[in-house]
Amino acid sequence: MTDDLTSLSIGTLSELLDARRIEAEALTRQCLARAEGVGRSLNCFITLCPDTALAEARAADARSATGQRLGKLDGIPVALKDNIDVANIPTTNGFGGGPLRVPREDATVTRRLRDAGAVILGKLTMHEGALGATTDNPHHGRTHNPFRHGHSPGGSSGGSGAAVAAGLCCAALGTDTGGSVRIPASWCGVVGLKPSYGLISTRGVVPLSHRLDHVGPLTRTAADATLLLDVLAGYDPLCPESRRASPGDATQPSLSGLRIAVLTNFAVETVEQEVTDAFAQSLARLCDAGARVETITLPAFDPVKVRRACFVRVEAEAAFVHGTLYQQEPGRFSAAMRGYLDYGLRLSATRLLQADRIMEEAAGALNACWDRFDVMLSPTTPQAAPSFDTIPPDNAGTFCVLANVGGYPAISLPMGMTTDGLPIGLQIVAPLDQDRRLLSIAATVESLLGAGPRPNIAIG
Amino acid sequence: MTDDLTSLSIGTLSELLDARRIEAEALTRQCLARAEGVGRSLNCFITLCPDTALAEARAADARSATGQRLGKLDGIPVALKDNIDVANIPTTNGFGGGPLRVPREDATVTRRLRDAGAVILGKLTMHEGALGATTDNPHHGRTHNPFRHGHSPGGSSGGSGAAVAAGLCCAALGTDTGGSVRIPASWCGVVGLKPSYGLISTRGVVPLSHRLDHVGPLTRTAADATLLLDVLAGYDPLCPESRRASPGDATQPSLSGLRIAVLTNFAVETVEQEVTDAFAQSLARLCDAGARVETITLPAFDPVKVRRACFVRVEAEAAFVHGTLYQQEPGRFSAAMRGYLDYGLRLSATRLLQADRIMEEAAGALNACWDRFDVMLSPTTPQAAPSFDTIPPDNAGTFCVLANVGGYPAISLPMGMTTDGLPIGLQIVAPLDQDRRLLSIAATVESLLGAGPRPNIAIG
Repeated sequence: MTDDLTSLSIGTLSELLDARRIEAEALTRQCLARAEGVGRSLNCFITLCPDTALAEARAADARSATGQRLGKLDGIPVALKDNIDVANIPTTNGFGGGPLRVPREDATVTRRLRDAGAVILGKLTMHEGALGATTDNPHHGRTHNPFRHGHSPGGSSGGSGAAVAAGLCCAALGTDTGGSVRIPASWCGVVGLKPSYGLISTRGVVPLSHRLDHVGPLTRTAADATLLLDVLAGYDPLCPESRRASPGDATQPSLSGLRIAVLTNFAVETVEQEVTDAFAQSLARLCDAGARVETITLPAFDPVKVRRACFVRVEAEAAFVHGTLYQQEPGRFSAAMRGYLDYGLRLSATRLLQADRIMEEAAGALNACWDRFDVMLSPTTPQAAPSFDTIPPDNAGTFCVLANVGGYPAISLPMGMTTDGLPIGLQIVAPLDQDRRLLSIAATVESLLGAGPRPNIAIG
Repeated sequence: MTDDLTSLSIGTLSELLDARRIEAEALTRQCLARAEGVGRSLNCFITLCPDTALAEARAADARSATGQRLGKLDGIPVALKDNIDVANIPTTNGFGGGPLRVPREDATVTRRLRDAGAVILGKLTMHEGALGATTDNPHHGRTHNPFRHGHSPGGSSGGSGAAVAAGLCCAALGTDTGGSVRIPASWCGVVGLKPSYGLISTRGVVPLSHRLDHVGPLTRTAADATLLLDVLAGYDPLCPESRRASPGDATQPSLSGLRIAVLTNFAVETVEQEVTDAFAQSLARLCDAGARVETITLPAFDPVKVRRACFVRVEAEAAFVHGTLYQQEPGRFSAAMRGYLDYGLRLSATRLLQADRIMEEAAGALNACWDRFDVMLSPTTPQAAPSFDTIPPDNAGTFCVLANVGGYPAISLPMGMTTDGLPIGLQIVAPLDQDRRLLSIAATVESLLGAGPRPNIAIG
């Protein structure tokens, strides 16, 4: 019972741990072996912590031996994007020139994982500064897509997506400012959840945009994402963005009568044909199962304007957060990042407010419609994972950003593959603070569309 | 039964209208007579609408005659600050050079008042652009405090405060971005409510700051403010700032056990001795009635920094909203206003974000404390109404702005007078979306401290 543990869901692994059919230490060793094998060729980890991870696993096994497991995450190996603080481990935020900081304290989410007994394997690669979607990092190298070497795993949480898909960990945390959890989930064929704004603390996470940042889990199933959400969500009095909110109640929804909105506004974006086809087929299967699709046109939502507005906001906030470091140590930043920071530093307040207004009006238009449907569906990304040899798409986040702008919970689920074997993602968006309902709908959709694909990679 | 109607509460007037002991037309004629008498010497109205008001009053009387009154506001004369659209009536926003616009549609709040049968008397004076607290308007003249000619009624909703205090109308609407409803309520000895953010639509109201603007009523009693809130609150799908929120439930609170927070952070501000004394006496009376006062120090709240940060935000947003008009027609703006707009137009995005962060951290610090108390109390303003002969105070809003920043409902109630006869205001702040609870606590406090003073002015 020690083969191929890394392909199992957390729910299944937890049952095996409960029954003492496996040990957390063996599971952790398998993850570490993969991280040092295939994980090295994929370039997933910036920092691997084998010694502390094994000690944590042994502690979990000791609890298990006395019937005192702390919950379903106890003894489960997880890894964190390298903008999330782990005490005494460097945080790079994907920058060059050495650690951005070596924090003395865990981020709140790290602390919550530890309190649930999770084993912290280490810190994962990310797009430089979390400001981009390819994880082609000039300081830490490219991270490769487990489905195709030389293709992007997405970003900015690219290491998180690749590590979960490749079985280096059972779950990973990422951050999502304009799709940075969902894009790698889509391109790597895993599940990625951006929760409701303010539901999961961002304290101890390097900010990109206080207005748009969210921490979220990447997992292999919707049920696993629910386990993570239940551990991570909760009011944090030390995080100004944290809200005293609840993720709502789970439902056991039948798809019968589920009201699905599809926005015509996205027609302005160029979408790969195979993505369009996979989405149409998914909708057809949902309708066969009894869902109703309503086509909606929002009066004040231009996806191109909104993603550009988000980018303006993010560049301004990045300049606010990192401007001093940039002026002191410009060598830590690539030419591209310096360009973004220069733009943000030069930006006028009125131009930022204009961008904010575009975002607020789009969110307001969608807010006005939520009584007409239960969830909004789209592809997660207009394209499957692109090759590093092509110009990176500028619209990878186009379907994603509205959920950041409006604070809505949103999830990416696998919905099949391209003919040449790259995953395609389906995005489901729900109203604010209906995270658990979204997750139960996602679990039903997942069982209809089938679980995520597994990459054909050698076991490390 | 037609004498002195203008001193009665809306609740009492509504009973008289119900019983057909008075007519809305007679009540409206009294208000119009006062508006054209003492109102003219106070300079309260920019536009008075006697013909339409009398027609609306007669329509209310016709409904009353057939037992079809629309509710307690039916036939009640109200007036609106001149940044709130009334169809076909000029909106000046306190600017010079002719109307800013002559709207074809009512603002949502105007429409809601009409739907409740209220009689719209006209449009009230305000501080230029709603950006100031004295209502010493260079284009439309000074509005005087009904308690002392030559003293400010407060602002920016100065006409609203003065008109309610002087009995020119039974209630008025104002707007509050950093205290602009509560400051005139305090200085004019009336009740002023800033509701929870997003609870009352701001559609059709000239924006000053989308982030901080609120519409709120000025009335003679807390019960009247409740009547207004119940008519005004509600989701507006065409207002991006509007939330699907509820003002919560009213309670019938005893003061026994009420947990009152008083912030030590305000000690950095200079407060007039008579205001300090009145506040201490009010607290003592509340404690005698069973309330408990807890002294709180918020770790991340410097009132001076926060009000300056709000001012930065407001100047930036004013420049965003009015910058084009300013560049086209600078003569519409005073030198002071041009200075604010120039500052806003020059401001960098990072400087605005720095101001926002100061606000967010202050609100976050208070959010973290709300479980320790029911309401937060302070004076509404550090001073009673200043003379126009003195330099305007720069800290009039210091106790007020935190409620704008955090979105909390906040009310100003009269708490006695200075020895030379000027009103003093008490502010009560409650958690987000507890507006009705705040109002029922305010009604109890009002009955303990006594109703507002009446100015000693000739009946017009």
